[in-house]
Amino acid sequence: MTSEEVKTMQTNYVLQSWSKQKGLNPIAIKRAEGIYMWDFDDKKYSDMSAQLVNLNVGHGNRYIIDAIKEQAEQYCYISPSYGSEPRAELAKMLIERLPDNMGKVFFTNGGADANENAIKMARMYTGRDKIFSRYRSYHGSTFGAGNLTGEPRRYPLEPGIPGFVKFFDPYIYREKIPFESEEAAAEYYVDKLREQICYEGAANVAAIVLETVTGSNGIIIPPKGYLKGIRNICDEFGIMLICDEVMAGFGRTGKMFAFENWDIKPDMVTFAKGVTCGYVQLGGVAVSKEIAAYFEDNTLLCGLTYSGHPLACAAGVACLKFYDDTNILEKVNQVGKVLGEKLNELKEKHDCVGDVRYIGLFSAIELVKSKSTKEPLVPYGSDTAGIMKGIIGRLAKKGFMTYSHENMILIAPPLIITAEQLVEELIKVDEVLTEVDAEI
Amino acid sequence: MTSEEVKTMQTNYVLQSWSKQKGLNPIAIKRAEGIYMWDFDDKKYSDMSAQLVNLNVGHGNRYIIDAIKEQAEQYCYISPSYGSEPRAELAKMLIERLPDNMGKVFFTNGGADANENAIKMARMYTGRDKIFSRYRSYHGSTFGAGNLTGEPRRYPLEPGIPGFVKFFDPYIYREKIPFESEEAAAEYYVDKLREQICYEGAANVAAIVLETVTGSNGIIIPPKGYLKGIRNICDEFGIMLICDEVMAGFGRTGKMFAFENWDIKPDMVTFAKGVTCGYVQLGGVAVSKEIAAYFEDNTLLCGLTYSGHPLACAAGVACLKFYDDTNILEKVNQVGKVLGEKLNELKEKHDCVGDVRYIGLFSAIELVKSKSTKEPLVPYGSDTAGIMKGIIGRLAKKGFMTYSHENMILIAPPLIITAEQLVEELIKVDEVLTEVDAEI
Repeated sequence: MTSEEVKTMQTNYVLQSWSKQKGLNPIAIKRAEGIYMWDFDDKKYSDMSAQLVNLNVGHGNRYIIDAIKEQAEQYCYISPSYGSEPRAELAKMLIERLPDNMGKVFFTNGGADANENAIKMARMYTGRDKIFSRYRSYHGSTFGAGNLTGEPRRYPLEPGIPGFVKFFDPYIYREKIPFESEEAAAEYYVDKLREQICYEGAANVAAIVLETVTGSNGIIIPPKGYLKGIRNICDEFGIMLICDEVMAGFGRTGKMFAFENWDIKPDMVTFAKGVTCGYVQLGGVAVSKEIAAYFEDNTLLCGLTYSGHPLACAAGVACLKFYDDTNILEKVNQVGKVLGEKLNELKEKHDCVGDVRYIGLFSAIELVKSKSTKEPLVPYGSDTAGIMKGIIGRLAKKGFMTYSHENMILIAPPLIITAEQLVEELIKVDEVLTEVDAEI
Repeated sequence: MTSEEVKTMQTNYVLQSWSKQKGLNPIAIKRAEGIYMWDFDDKKYSDMSAQLVNLNVGHGNRYIIDAIKEQAEQYCYISPSYGSEPRAELAKMLIERLPDNMGKVFFTNGGADANENAIKMARMYTGRDKIFSRYRSYHGSTFGAGNLTGEPRRYPLEPGIPGFVKFFDPYIYREKIPFESEEAAAEYYVDKLREQICYEGAANVAAIVLETVTGSNGIIIPPKGYLKGIRNICDEFGIMLICDEVMAGFGRTGKMFAFENWDIKPDMVTFAKGVTCGYVQLGGVAVSKEIAAYFEDNTLLCGLTYSGHPLACAAGVACLKFYDDTNILEKVNQVGKVLGEKLNELKEKHDCVGDVRYIGLFSAIELVKSKSTKEPLVPYGSDTAGIMKGIIGRLAKKGFMTYSHENMILIAPPLIITAEQLVEELIKVDEVLTEVDAEI
């Protein structure tokens, strides 16, 4: 097919996510390698969001491609009740990489159904109904995961599921209270949450679900002491702490799992994206030894046709081996340091940059009309003028591909990016922000 | 790994669907080809449920394996907003195979999220909240799909989502009313549904969701006139008719889509399983031209990272080509005729067989304590003695692999099975049923 044929056929027959379909003009991709993609005219694009923050190893990874090809020749699929080598091996590798309180893995197809199954299990295990999750979070868009979600992508699922309760996240940049330290902020938010849990009835609360580091909603990083405080509340009341590591897991923050940055052990960890980098779809829930033990004698009322899909698990085994063999965490920390420095320079230089937040290779630039008032460049949930879309479009014209959310530009390249590549790409951001400065 | 290593590692680290974990002893599979699988001791098993009624083409299909290997070398994944050849091509091929009222496809990872997104779209398109679905149905186990589900696998998701309403299905074998004909039964059930919709407020109802042929809950086949009657109700009140073809689609019933057997056109079709046979996970929702047109100017508030996954779509393109090239529908109808004859013989012969139901290569044997009282062999939702599990275990000992649901044995082999293979396998069923006869 030609580029035009691909575009026309796709827009004629495919419904594209989160979009009005009129006027869509997708860039047709012909090949991809490392952090780059090429269209049919050989124009090169750099993948500065690792697609949807899933492609940690970049495109064309030989470990994973070869594993897929090999497994495809053996068998692609057998049902979850059969013993399968890649399924068994990947589960073991995951548990070995998780904290020592973790016991077993339930596999799904992605992050949404990972979260769906985590809350189901938390309810079964605790015998309680209520589920706490945060505003400005995204956990998926199916009914269960979408009811966890704390931003407008939840609205089409309302009236919501009984028992789902939202609490505020530690979005310190926009908090009115002048905290003296990260620790003081953490204490404030934890106390507020504890108070809210008491009002909801602590004995009714099955789980607290949170993105360890909030992803698409703006890389909101927990202040020091925050996660420990939440862990304490969970311990006090017998509530399950579920860390959603769908975006933040598998090296994105410079640790294998993001919660390791704050030295806590969740009761459940949901994962997807980086476990296979999306070469084949895979997600899952890791549960503590206590929860796993509960399901020895109690029926696990969870299931899906493709749980522990062998082809996907083979991709996962290869992906984790690649992380090991290439010391991916060390790379992320080295290049992440450069990312942080460069983002701070952008913040210094540009009037339109209110804040930059980063950890590892996970970062966001928050755009404002004014540094002093902090007024967001676009109002919450209603960028009807398409201002952010325009900024993303200008970056794309320079071959810098990423996405935005509200007034935030996300920058989260494949973890294999070099410091040289990163610096080269950020020049394009600098140029576009200079234009934005001139317009506000 | 050895067989023991696979088993031990899997039971140590993997949570298995719908099970108490204690005592699980999975058969470890080493290779698979056509309708057969082999364990590490080279014991052969016949796959008489096409795994979970997804493996229509059997194991080791060269069309699909080669397509996966080729696509993996080009790229495995790019995000839904990019133009991708296999994504565009598969959507076009699907629309060409669906009725002429169908417009576009939204891709998901499987059947559950296909149903989740279908009901979301129906709500957006109609501006209404209520969703009707049937008892004795299975639509998935995430919160939205699970709230559609009309059997015990729904219970862990309750208290349920507001606005989900259940109605009775046409389970004629156990209906007390002595219908004079299929048409009379259809009229009765359609009238009852219309009455119920009026009580719920027809103007509040967004969609009626049904498995065109009920799958795991016992191959419940709509009587003549039933689906046309439901289509009429939908037309009368502006309700979307969503046919769940996750199991029944892609040739399983002898037509490409099951609703073709009764000459109706749904507003939406959800699919999964047979579209790729699970070689790579894929599902989706096809929507009518009217619904597709609505989303030209209205934002489609649906999305997932892996929508239109290129590797999965490449597998789907190859799979549909295989169906075409091998005249799969003709095969299903020929071998399906033999299946029906043999099942009727089993019903004649065995006291424990209350009913057999079949269409194409989709069938169930319903077991009873007595043909005259029709008392089910095990009580609904509580086979605590494990009687059905025992029967499935006896079949497995003979190398006949399938699964049961309530008092039903499902028989739904890969569509490539030959009449000779089928007859050979059904001898094993005959033998086991003879044992059951002796025990009741």
